[in-house]
Amino acid sequence: MTEKYDIVIIGAGPVGLLLSTCLARWGYKIKHIDMRPEPTATGRADGIQPRSLDLLRNMGLKRAIMAHNPAKVFEVAFWDPSEKGEGIHRTGTWASCPSFIEARYPFTTLLHQGLIERVFIADLEKNGVQIQRPWRITGFQNDGGDPEYPVEVSIAHVEGDEKETMRAKYLFSGEGARSFIREQLGVQIVHKDPIAHVWGVMDGVVRTDFPDIKMKCTIHSDAGSIMVIPRENNMVRLYIQIASSTDADWNPRKTATEEEVQNHAKKIMHPYSITWDRVEWYSVYPIGQGIAERYTLDERVFMGGDCCHTHSPKAGQGMNTAFLDAQNLAWKIHHVETGFADRTILKSYESERKLIAENLLNFDAAYAKLFSTRQPSAGEVGHANAQTAGEQQPAEENEFIKMFKASCEFTSGYGVAYNANLLNWCPSHPAQSPLFLSHDAGTTALRTGRILIPATVTRVSDANVVHLEQEIPLNGAFRIYVFAGDISRTSRAVHDFAAALDRRNSFFRRFERADLDKVSYHEKHNPHSDFFTFATVVNAKRPEVEIRRDLPETLARYFDHVYADDVWDRRVPEAKAAAHVKMGLSEETGGVVVVRPDGYVGCVVKLVEGSGTVDALDGYFGAFTAKKVGAKGEGARL
Amino acid sequence: MTEKYDIVIIGAGPVGLLLSTCLARWGYKIKHIDMRPEPTATGRADGIQPRSLDLLRNMGLKRAIMAHNPAKVFEVAFWDPSEKGEGIHRTGTWASCPSFIEARYPFTTLLHQGLIERVFIADLEKNGVQIQRPWRITGFQNDGGDPEYPVEVSIAHVEGDEKETMRAKYLFSGEGARSFIREQLGVQIVHKDPIAHVWGVMDGVVRTDFPDIKMKCTIHSDAGSIMVIPRENNMVRLYIQIASSTDADWNPRKTATEEEVQNHAKKIMHPYSITWDRVEWYSVYPIGQGIAERYTLDERVFMGGDCCHTHSPKAGQGMNTAFLDAQNLAWKIHHVETGFADRTILKSYESERKLIAENLLNFDAAYAKLFSTRQPSAGEVGHANAQTAGEQQPAEENEFIKMFKASCEFTSGYGVAYNANLLNWCPSHPAQSPLFLSHDAGTTALRTGRILIPATVTRVSDANVVHLEQEIPLNGAFRIYVFAGDISRTSRAVHDFAAALDRRNSFFRRFERADLDKVSYHEKHNPHSDFFTFATVVNAKRPEVEIRRDLPETLARYFDHVYADDVWDRRVPEAKAAAHVKMGLSEETGGVVVVRPDGYVGCVVKLVEGSGTVDALDGYFGAFTAKKVGAKGEGARL
Repeated sequence: MTEKYDIVIIGAGPVGLLLSTCLARWGYKIKHIDMRPEPTATGRADGIQPRSLDLLRNMGLKRAIMAHNPAKVFEVAFWDPSEKGEGIHRTGTWASCPSFIEARYPFTTLLHQGLIERVFIADLEKNGVQIQRPWRITGFQNDGGDPEYPVEVSIAHVEGDEKETMRAKYLFSGEGARSFIREQLGVQIVHKDPIAHVWGVMDGVVRTDFPDIKMKCTIHSDAGSIMVIPRENNMVRLYIQIASSTDADWNPRKTATEEEVQNHAKKIMHPYSITWDRVEWYSVYPIGQGIAERYTLDERVFMGGDCCHTHSPKAGQGMNTAFLDAQNLAWKIHHVETGFADRTILKSYESERKLIAENLLNFDAAYAKLFSTRQPSAGEVGHANAQTAGEQQPAEENEFIKMFKASCEFTSGYGVAYNANLLNWCPSHPAQSPLFLSHDAGTTALRTGRILIPATVTRVSDANVVHLEQEIPLNGAFRIYVFAGDISRTSRAVHDFAAALDRRNSFFRRFERADLDKVSYHEKHNPHSDFFTFATVVNAKRPEVEIRRDLPETLARYFDHVYADDVWDRRVPEAKAAAHVKMGLSEETGGVVVVRPDGYVGCVVKLVEGSGTVDALDGYFGAFTAKKVGAKGEGARL
Repeated sequence: MTEKYDIVIIGAGPVGLLLSTCLARWGYKIKHIDMRPEPTATGRADGIQPRSLDLLRNMGLKRAIMAHNPAKVFEVAFWDPSEKGEGIHRTGTWASCPSFIEARYPFTTLLHQGLIERVFIADLEKNGVQIQRPWRITGFQNDGGDPEYPVEVSIAHVEGDEKETMRAKYLFSGEGARSFIREQLGVQIVHKDPIAHVWGVMDGVVRTDFPDIKMKCTIHSDAGSIMVIPRENNMVRLYIQIASSTDADWNPRKTATEEEVQNHAKKIMHPYSITWDRVEWYSVYPIGQGIAERYTLDERVFMGGDCCHTHSPKAGQGMNTAFLDAQNLAWKIHHVETGFADRTILKSYESERKLIAENLLNFDAAYAKLFSTRQPSAGEVGHANAQTAGEQQPAEENEFIKMFKASCEFTSGYGVAYNANLLNWCPSHPAQSPLFLSHDAGTTALRTGRILIPATVTRVSDANVVHLEQEIPLNGAFRIYVFAGDISRTSRAVHDFAAALDRRNSFFRRFERADLDKVSYHEKHNPHSDFFTFATVVNAKRPEVEIRRDLPETLARYFDHVYADDVWDRRVPEAKAAAHVKMGLSEETGGVVVVRPDGYVGCVVKLVEGSGTVDALDGYFGAFTAKKVGAKGEGARL
């Protein structure tokens, strides 16, 4: 008997672990192997960007990460050769996530990859998944021998004779840059920037009078360049470029000893002194920009993370991009396997995530070019930061500031923007209705393919002040936010919305839970359907809202997802209902926002009397659901 | 050989555990016993007030508490009999910690006592302390048989024949209301309010259409009264008064079955329905207001927590008062035992903490009276809440609003105010200098005996935005905040301050660490002395501050405790340096704030050129240090 799995995951780095964690929580049977006998002990990736921290919080893992007291980078400092005499001087600093980006956590979190891996591993163990180590993949084929489990996978113990063969619905490579699966598939790596570098990276505890040792720094000196990144437990990471393919004597195998790198660093940082108490990790590795031409050939064998994209460590994006690769794939597999979505949505994994990797590589190159030209002036940085309420806006933005802003958005993770497709509505989407709102048309501030704008509101049931965008956990469900505006004006529209949801063929009724009559009274997120969680946001003071009086039964059932939009926000200081205003929705008439399970906006629809709002949503969902929904006109009230 | 301990602690409830945790961290040898075979399994205390959460955070324990996803109470709702017909209606709600109180965590955290106990127990175990269970105290005497360990203590296994006798420097009773030690000492309980009650308390998971089930509620109905408190894991606690000593048939042994209480609750909550999925804990107990006449007779055998004060559960103050009892005692014992402070400071444990218990009991009575008279009107609540910037202040406060505000301050824990004594400076303190600032004189907003006003600032070393009042952990040291104002104006004063600190007999030099030359380069809080941590707050934008250029070496050594006062604060929207302004200090010339190890302000002094500032501090500390300090005029520069 060949063992059968929903998915076989190769590699227990960030991409494999996040994918595995999601799917394990949603009940899938997983075989997860890794070549290393233990999780990462030291070194490797370490930067969690603001957007990734949002994601980890949405998964309930942030607290365990923060328990390790990671370093937090709020500012980046630039050091250049002094104009007169020797040594270096600071030319400026800027926020690593400036206030024009609305981030809950406007900083980069630095923690060694092994601690991050262990947080996922602990969660996996709660769901019965153990990483099998040290095992490697030895072969696979999508031979369709079993239509339900079309992929055969062979694995072996790294050192012994033990072997296993199994069948799976999916195979995922989170193997890293050297991927057996990618090679076997014959997928090529395209090198965008032909220049490769050899980097030295050293984690250690130092003593120094260099004042910015606890900030991220790029230091250019006549003796060379170095990047400084603070770490937990008084550690500092130094990146130093050892060789470049543009060097006359370029040798990708060029190396340097710990001591050589330390001496080099001492010269670069002169006149400041630096000595090492201890070195935790030291590594030298060649790396170039590369991107896989395909992320999957058959929507059965998938790849993600470093397997698909490599780049310089400067942007600190590796782990973050890996996380989002995995998150993107996880819910799509889930929706296909549960019969919610058509198999075609799996194609959007490659189209969405490869675009991001391309942007990353372009950014990486542009970023380098930007700084090779010149450093930003203090005035420019000031202007670029001046985007919160009450501060002066620059009359005009020059190219440099635009690039700076784009780079901050990108490195913080908030620049991720998926193009329009079946999941991200645009005017050419199959769903056509005059009720769809769009950023381009200026009818909402929300952009499809971008994350929901964060907003602070008051939960009506318990008066807790909460972060709206975090209220629904990453549970595989679409998040449908009903911004109800002024309920005294919209009451009929809200009740009509609920009534239309209740029509026989609505997207909502078509995907009701099979165990509807056995659902726990205390179920908060998915009382009706595994695929939808509803949240209602009312423009009112909390004590004015009476959930069971003001809302139709369907929405009132989400008793813990009703919010009063009554928290003052500095970004819209004059707003009565700040969340409505920030979303670019009317404080009076509201609107309905559909957010994908991964937090990206799918579509935004006017909230109107009659069935139009639900008709539009039927159209949106019907474009990719596995069952027909909506059947406009046929829908009869049950 | 009789075993010797620094302290023997009886009882592992909140008061004993917090005391034990502090002393264990500071290296004391502890014997800690408890009569119960296990920590609290269900029920008992559960409310952590905002101020207590500050304290737990300052001890590094908040994250472990919050990991249990406690309920958070932001609002209290009042329900009364409907005027017409039967049933109840809501007469109003108000914030449990309104915005006129500046709290980092403006809510009550509800979590069952056993989970809280376990957080402390885990920390104790890290420091080598195990609670010995189930053991009880059988005898003790302060016989001075050993001058260093004057107290003999005998303990025995609760069920067996095992016995131990030991000697200790201190004995502490955290035994709860029924205290063997208190009885043996012959300390009387004074009953402030002669009325006693029998309370029923029930924790359970319920189903109800009562809309405020997730808020704290007091419900008065024609069928009786009930208090509702939400809990973690969908639980709800109900308090119900079963009998009162004012009843004609008063019987302190009166009881009621679970079912009787549930039926009673159903009647009170009519027309809303309520049913129980399960009952986690149910208990009936008689309780009256009581306070111990003394907390110690000899400053060797101490008592705290419920052993010293009992009251109705309504105010939710039991555990919180216990925490603060323990914290107050911990650092005083530490300062005496390390030779820093004169033994007389131990007397202030009783004088400070008994006052708070008296206030608590008075409050408890006044609170009950307030609500027996009438409920607040919506307008009054609105006025009382309207104290943040930009909102209208009421022209005049009536008695009712004053009482309301006082009660909110008190229940949140921020009303704790210690009277003037050697530790809390006032004009009659032995230390006399025209440089002392005071709230009464209007020269600072800070009040001695009250906690430091919270302020958000930017740490210069790493640009992290931080909570100033939390930056120095509860480590037994006084916290000396140098608000340096505009450093271009105060540079001389700041350097003179550091120079004066360096005088031979200054409070600072007299209590230098013995291992000064072996202190770790990475020591952040106590590089010079175990008893002082310095923090410098500069009125400047972070990038303008160059620590080693702008500050004298002594202050620059606290490299991670230098802050830029550059974070906008809604409470003082026009301020350039919000923290300075909130403390009531000049943004130009600053001032020095001494905060006791427990976070309460000790004294505030002008920052001036010359030695006057340090002279004043020498006077302040000299009033209670075990060694003479300051010797004004004699102090020569070393």
